Amino acid sequence: MQDSVIQLGHGGGGRLARELIRDEILPRFGNGPLSGLPDGATLPAIPAELVFTTDSFVVRPLEFPGGNIGCLSVHGTVNDLAVCGAAPRWLSLGLIIEEGLPVALLRRILDSVRAAADQCGVTVATGDTKVVGRGQADGLFINTAGIGEKLPGFDLAPERVEAGDAVLVSGPVGDHGAAVLASRETIAVAAGPSSDTAPVHRLVGAIQPVAAQVRFMRDPTRGGLAAVLNEIVEDRPVGIAVSEGAVPLSAGTGAVCELLGLDPLHLPSEGRVVLVCAATRADEILRRWRGLPEGAGARRIGTVTSAPGRVVLETVVGGTRLVDVPRGELLPRIC
Amino acid sequence: MQDSVIQLGHGGGGRLARELIRDEILPRFGNGPLSGLPDGATLPAIPAELVFTTDSFVVRPLEFPGGNIGCLSVHGTVNDLAVCGAAPRWLSLGLIIEEGLPVALLRRILDSVRAAADQCGVTVATGDTKVVGRGQADGLFINTAGIGEKLPGFDLAPERVEAGDAVLVSGPVGDHGAAVLASRETIAVAAGPSSDTAPVHRLVGAIQPVAAQVRFMRDPTRGGLAAVLNEIVEDRPVGIAVSEGAVPLSAGTGAVCELLGLDPLHLPSEGRVVLVCAATRADEILRRWRGLPEGAGARRIGTVTSAPGRVVLETVVGGTRLVDVPRGELLPRIC
Repeated sequence: MQDSVIQLGHGGGGRLARELIRDEILPRFGNGPLSGLPDGATLPAIPAELVFTTDSFVVRPLEFPGGNIGCLSVHGTVNDLAVCGAAPRWLSLGLIIEEGLPVALLRRILDSVRAAADQCGVTVATGDTKVVGRGQADGLFINTAGIGEKLPGFDLAPERVEAGDAVLVSGPVGDHGAAVLASRETIAVAAGPSSDTAPVHRLVGAIQPVAAQVRFMRDPTRGGLAAVLNEIVEDRPVGIAVSEGAVPLSAGTGAVCELLGLDPLHLPSEGRVVLVCAATRADEILRRWRGLPEGAGARRIGTVTSAPGRVVLETVVGGTRLVDVPRGELLPRIC
Repeated sequence: MQDSVIQLGHGGGGRLARELIRDEILPRFGNGPLSGLPDGATLPAIPAELVFTTDSFVVRPLEFPGGNIGCLSVHGTVNDLAVCGAAPRWLSLGLIIEEGLPVALLRRILDSVRAAADQCGVTVATGDTKVVGRGQADGLFINTAGIGEKLPGFDLAPERVEAGDAVLVSGPVGDHGAAVLASRETIAVAAGPSSDTAPVHRLVGAIQPVAAQVRFMRDPTRGGLAAVLNEIVEDRPVGIAVSEGAVPLSAGTGAVCELLGLDPLHLPSEGRVVLVCAATRADEILRRWRGLPEGAGARRIGTVTSAPGRVVLETVVGGTRLVDVPRGELLPRIC
């Protein structure tokens, strides 16, 4: 491709669009079912229940410390599949590009999609590119949909959560949100935060031997840990007590939260798992997670209680406060 | 939902976002795998090869004669599955909404998604909603991905197309493009064109008994009939001769093309099939198509030739001209 920025014609039905696909898409994704460029990819029959999910990514800026919208859009969908107890297999990739996007930036992002897909063992099987005029989008939006193969043994549902169960998290919370905010506001803190964007499918695979005792898993993205914990107890006869001192927090994220007056429990992560399990299995799950680099910071952070619908934080100074979900949007376009 | 326009918070992780899902999404799509709102939908094991496809829709205006972006985003993906020889089964629905979109408009569009999905026999299994600020998108973009079940008997590939084969189309071409352009430019022509947006899966199902003699199918969207015909012959030892007088064209679309100086072969359709088959089967396929309302206007429009890579139009006045693919984008945001 000779052009240095994306033109409207790159999204049309003409020669420019075919050049974009031939020069930028096929070299990265053309080995699989996409070769020959049919309207859809043929996948082999899979003799298992499937999990199907989708997510759109509108993060701003497109590149941030620790990643970019490309790997984020792979990790986000891979992680949704993983916390449903599925092995991620196939992805679709839909690009909506604003006219004028530098081609060099698009190349870096597509390289990152490819590298992340390889890392997760998933195939980008089908895709679509649209281009809209200047001012009609904001650089690049990406949608991915994913198909996963259900792993035997998991039976995940908030209804299975009982008083006495343990609440675990696989690593420090809020790093993605803190990194994007810091780069957007050009905040320079020592050891600034880096996004935790990463796949969690290995964390899920590692605990399959104790799958039956896992009640619930979720990746804490929009709304952060606070939203996930409230989702577990909403309209249910249980609550959750979280020990503030036990919630793992990276130094950079702590510094950004202090500077901006944000609660780290509201900041999204993009490479963590929140898990509820029978308390007797908590130590085994932590041990299995800590055996992987991405689970090195795993901690038990709380316990399920019999206080209906309430998520309570036991603070480090000995008090308690309710952990609430904000009404609106604190952090637009964080993912 | 009490608000009259979409706010940024409707796309966040907080209470407004849960209201949007509870009041607008679940009542329309919550009967299926989406109930309980997990991160992904569990689908039953399907004992067949699968087809997987995706498309983003950025059409402007959001509503046009004959349809809106909602039904279009269902038909587009259903049709991509169908022309790959698959029965459409499951859809994902990703919304990217610009802050300020009227909620009443969003409701009409979601109603249209639901009605189209019902008409096609597909289930909207999983979804995602993002909201971006004013001026960062243009009303609403929709991505759908689809999973279909491969129908036995079809073996579709441009490589199977041979000189002497027949080229058919299932109805008038270009109506979607003409309708969107006419509404955008507020052109009032008598009997103005109406979009042909509609599913084609029944047209594909109807010809399954002769599937083995079907070489190629495609729905002529971006780039229109011209792009599909050129795609068939590109880098191949065959060409196509099309008879201009045989190409079905509605009166409204003809009038808009004359007014704007456009070639109807370049205008997208959203409810048609272009098909290449063994010439001996052409009549049977036309008969089967004409037995359905959506195939009433089916015609044989041409023949595969041995002139490598060339698509030639035999004009009504007795001349010939090459049918080319435009370099750039004539019709931005037409679908």
